[in-house]
Amino acid sequence: MSRRLGVLISGRGSNLQALIRAIQEGRLDATIAVVISNIADAPGLALAQAAGIETVTISHKGWPSRADFDREVAGALTAHQVDLVCLAGFMRLVGQPLLEAFPNRILNIHPSLLPSFPGIEPQRQALDHGVKVSGVTVHLVTADLDAGPIILQRPVPVVDGDTPVTLAARILEEEHRAYPEAVRLVLEGGWRIEGRRFVALRTTA
Amino acid sequence: MSRRLGVLISGRGSNLQALIRAIQEGRLDATIAVVISNIADAPGLALAQAAGIETVTISHKGWPSRADFDREVAGALTAHQVDLVCLAGFMRLVGQPLLEAFPNRILNIHPSLLPSFPGIEPQRQALDHGVKVSGVTVHLVTADLDAGPIILQRPVPVVDGDTPVTLAARILEEEHRAYPEAVRLVLEGGWRIEGRRFVALRTTA
Repeated sequence: MSRRLGVLISGRGSNLQALIRAIQEGRLDATIAVVISNIADAPGLALAQAAGIETVTISHKGWPSRADFDREVAGALTAHQVDLVCLAGFMRLVGQPLLEAFPNRILNIHPSLLPSFPGIEPQRQALDHGVKVSGVTVHLVTADLDAGPIILQRPVPVVDGDTPVTLAARILEEEHRAYPEAVRLVLEGGWRIEGRRFVALRTTA
Repeated sequence: MSRRLGVLISGRGSNLQALIRAIQEGRLDATIAVVISNIADAPGLALAQAAGIETVTISHKGWPSRADFDREVAGALTAHQVDLVCLAGFMRLVGQPLLEAFPNRILNIHPSLLPSFPGIEPQRQALDHGVKVSGVTVHLVTADLDAGPIILQRPVPVVDGDTPVTLAARILEEEHRAYPEAVRLVLEGGWRIEGRRFVALRTTA
C-alpha cells in the first residue's frame, strides 16, 4: 500500500509541487494525505487543492504555548494516518510534541550543503563567504536546527555574478529533484541511524 | 615568460606531482622554480629531483622563533624569484613574514568543502558528521587557518561504506585535477578580492 505523506508549508509550496509531480509521474510511490499550513493564505494551499489534496490550516498564533501548536499539528497528521512528514518551506521550529509523534519521520530540505550555512538566508551566507560550490541537503529533523542526520545532498555550483536570487533559483531546481528522491530513499527502508549518520544497511554476503 | 612557482611540502608531495604533470602536459603554463621541504627526508623531494627541480630543505626546528623560520622560507622563495607559492601537504602554519612577502600569492588545498571541516582529518570529520557530499577547496592563505578566499571548489560524493581512507583517496583524485586548475586561474589574472571572496572581474560591455 502506498505510504502516506503529510506536507507542512508556510508559503508558495514549490517543493510540495515537486512532490506532487514526482508522485504523478510515478517516480515516487506515495500519497499526500494532507497539506498543513500555519498561514491561512499560503499559496501552496491552493496548489494542493488543485491537485485534489486535503488541506488544513492551523495558525501558530493564539496558543498558550508553542507545544500546544505542535500537538495540534501532530494530531492533524495522525488523524490523516501520515507515515512521513515533509517540511516544505514550513517557517516554524518543530518542537518536542511533533518530534515525539514522528521520531525519525520528519524530513526537511535546506538550500545549502550542511553543516555549512544553517539558519536563514543560506544562499546569501554562501555568497558572502565566497564558496564556489553550494547545494541542497535533505535531513531528518531533530531538536537541533538544520543539524539532523543527512539523507541526501546534491552540489550546486556558484557562478561569477551570482546574486542571492540567481543562486537560490539554481539551488531550487536541484531541491525539486532532491526532495522526492530523498523521500523515496526513506520510504524504501533499509537504513539506520548510526551516531549522527543516515546509513544504508550493508547487504550481507 | 612562464611564471615561477615555489612548492612547499612536508611529505609525499602527491599534489606536487600533479602540478609537475600538468606543466609537462601543457595544461599549466608555469615553471616550478623550487620545492622547499621542512622535513629532510620527505619523499616529495626525490620526486622533485627526478623531475629536475631544485630542492631546498629548511627544518622548522632550531629557530629562535617561528617568524625566523618563516623569514628563511620567504628568503629562499624570493631568491628563486618565485611568483606564486603552492602549499602541498606543508604541515606548518604560515606566519606573517611569509604572508607579507607573498600577499594573496600563497595557495593551499584542503580536502573538504570549506567552511565545513577545517583543520585536521577533514575526511574523518566529514564521515563522522554524515555528509553525503564532501570535496576539495583551493584557497588563498591568510592568517586564519583554512579560511582564506576560495579560488575553486569541487564536490566529491561520499558513498555508503566509505572509511576515512577510501574517502581520502577519492578526494585526492579530485585534488590532483583541482590544484593545477586553480593555479592556472590565479596566474591568468582578471580577478580581485572582494570582502572574503575571490571574484572574476566582470567584462564590461
